[in-house]
Amino acid sequence: MRIAIGIEYAGNAFEGWQTQPHGRTVQDFLERALAQIAQEPVKLVCAGRTDTGVHASMQVAHFDTAAHRPLEAWVRGVNSHLPASIGVLWAVEVDESFHARFSAEARRYRYVLLNRRIRPGLAGGRVGWTHGDLDEEAMAAAAACLAGEHDFTSFRAAECQAKSPVRLMHSVSVQRRGEVVVFDFHANAFLHHMIRNLVGSLVFVGKGRRPVDWMAELLAARNRSLAAPTFAPDGLYLCGVDYPPQWPLPGGGRIIAPPQLLLP
Amino acid sequence: MRIAIGIEYAGNAFEGWQTQPHGRTVQDFLERALAQIAQEPVKLVCAGRTDTGVHASMQVAHFDTAAHRPLEAWVRGVNSHLPASIGVLWAVEVDESFHARFSAEARRYRYVLLNRRIRPGLAGGRVGWTHGDLDEEAMAAAAACLAGEHDFTSFRAAECQAKSPVRLMHSVSVQRRGEVVVFDFHANAFLHHMIRNLVGSLVFVGKGRRPVDWMAELLAARNRSLAAPTFAPDGLYLCGVDYPPQWPLPGGGRIIAPPQLLLP
Repeated sequence: MRIAIGIEYAGNAFEGWQTQPHGRTVQDFLERALAQIAQEPVKLVCAGRTDTGVHASMQVAHFDTAAHRPLEAWVRGVNSHLPASIGVLWAVEVDESFHARFSAEARRYRYVLLNRRIRPGLAGGRVGWTHGDLDEEAMAAAAACLAGEHDFTSFRAAECQAKSPVRLMHSVSVQRRGEVVVFDFHANAFLHHMIRNLVGSLVFVGKGRRPVDWMAELLAARNRSLAAPTFAPDGLYLCGVDYPPQWPLPGGGRIIAPPQLLLP
Repeated sequence: MRIAIGIEYAGNAFEGWQTQPHGRTVQDFLERALAQIAQEPVKLVCAGRTDTGVHASMQVAHFDTAAHRPLEAWVRGVNSHLPASIGVLWAVEVDESFHARFSAEARRYRYVLLNRRIRPGLAGGRVGWTHGDLDEEAMAAAAACLAGEHDFTSFRAAECQAKSPVRLMHSVSVQRRGEVVVFDFHANAFLHHMIRNLVGSLVFVGKGRRPVDWMAELLAARNRSLAAPTFAPDGLYLCGVDYPPQWPLPGGGRIIAPPQLLLP
């Protein structure tokens, strides 16, 4: 049978999602914990393979198993075999037409950026950081051009293996909450390093190093060398995946759990 | 000269505040980093020695040094020698009448408790956790008796070295914010494990295992064996220290920085 699970993790404790021979990735820890419950090897497929240092408040994955277990065993049972910084949030049985990656219609990412003079300590590894005043209204205005279907070559890592650089961006928002600026991105899919590259260029605009219409110029230029450097992974969270409604997934398939700031 | 500094740290990355031969405590990392800037050994005295796993969004400490450095060197310079989970927030010069511990008139602690069915993953080590519905109004009612001057023997660890078990509690509050319950404590000082013991007993009330007036009974009994077990350190944050106004400290001496946490 096929099981879909929701997962959250602090990416700074692991070396990315994707399995590696050294075994210190999120996928490796999860597959070992799932195998403890299944009593057989388990292979996971996820909606979005996050890089080293990137977090998830809602990752979705699926696996096939011959083991019959109560759904609770795939949540609490698996959690008892996981490090404190990874947790399974839910598990549902799906039919074999469901595929965590290929069935996903859209992904949601949030970038949390601490904008103050002193680098983070308590939130070290959990937020991006830049000193110098950021103009969030200029960044929001600059980001508006990203909505819609575009060729995102200017924001694509050289190592990106996607066949096409065209993505459909449903929405982008930039909002300040005190010393924190929150960037939300919702698109059908993302290219390698795309959000960190977008945030890097938006920060150039926010600092006044480039004008608001520079983002539209970058997009039109389709040239990675013109855009700003890739921003740090520390503030990036995969926080939702959208699926069609035919499977018994939480939220009717719109599975959203943005990481929240607990404000005083 | 004497320098006072404000510090934040994620306690789950270190083995408590107080220096140990193994060198993996917050004090050890800070003293080594300060010595790099001072080019001489530095000894720190803090306002509140936090246990292993306990965090600080605002710890205050002081040290004496013969080294003359710009104040910025004690902040950014020191930060460049610290792990990502500790940061110096500010530094000011004070005269020798200031003592981080003995001049402090009050401390503020916050306990952040995740109240949901599934244990934390993304916030693992950063929040306490309990499943089963908690009645925050019952806990707030039970906590009301703690305000004022009391003998807190019932909430004192056996290892506590304080001369007197009497403390003056300025205020206690219990508030729900979605799946999180936030406990705030403000007192002249705290006994060893006092907050974790108070939270443990308040959770018994919140779950309905004990009535609201049980807290007042415990307080009157002055008997540690009657109260609930010590709660986990994971959700506890030192978040402020109050000093008299005569030193040039931030906030005129009322130095408060409640944690702005990322929560799932």
